[in-house]
Amino acid sequence: MFVEALKEVVENTDGAVASLLMDVEGIPVESYIKEGMAIPFDIEVVGAEFSVIVKSVQRTVESLEAGETRELSVQSERVITLIRVLTHEYFVALALEPTGNIGKGRYMLRVQAPKLLADLA
Amino acid sequence: MFVEALKEVVENTDGAVASLLMDVEGIPVESYIKEGMAIPFDIEVVGAEFSVIVKSVQRTVESLEAGETRELSVQSERVITLIRVLTHEYFVALALEPTGNIGKGRYMLRVQAPKLLADLA
Repeated sequence: MFVEALKEVVENTDGAVASLLMDVEGIPVESYIKEGMAIPFDIEVVGAEFSVIVKSVQRTVESLEAGETRELSVQSERVITLIRVLTHEYFVALALEPTGNIGKGRYMLRVQAPKLLADLA
Repeated sequence: MFVEALKEVVENTDGAVASLLMDVEGIPVESYIKEGMAIPFDIEVVGAEFSVIVKSVQRTVESLEAGETRELSVQSERVITLIRVLTHEYFVALALEPTGNIGKGRYMLRVQAPKLLADLA
């Protein structure tokens, strides 16, 4: 169920390497790694670290009365991470190479979000 | 000095409302609010909250050996915040309306970053 949507996001975004559905407590639900790709990190460890950031951002955004957190992105020298918050409990993350297509990645996460949400319900 | 670059970013980005140069300890250096705009929040309070997030993201990215943090964005219902990390100590933030032009905002931050860096040196 979830893996099909995660695969769609990765295989249709240039430079994408992996996607992950996770709860904000850091527990992975499902992940997908690009076919034929050996990634040099443990995607679930990365997801757990980012879940801490997501929670912290949600708290900050709420304290500023800026409404619900929708998206988050972090770009570092070696990886781009795009996160779309699905519910207060779950988010989906996409990891891309630094040259990856951020716009397409955000679009694919937005398009696939309803399918993930439907399966989470 | 700093305010000219901050103004350039805001006045050349559709939907931008304010920009802010800040250190990661939460101390504001300079800010610029769009001409004629009354914003419903204290930009320095927002900046201080985001400085906590920037530090937390920097720590996470380093722990994952993903290199230096370059950019960060947070989209909520009421505001989009784009952050460009200038040095390990300073970042520049841009707040936009939810319909603001993110691509142009990121571009303007990238273009103005060297000017801010030159003045920080």
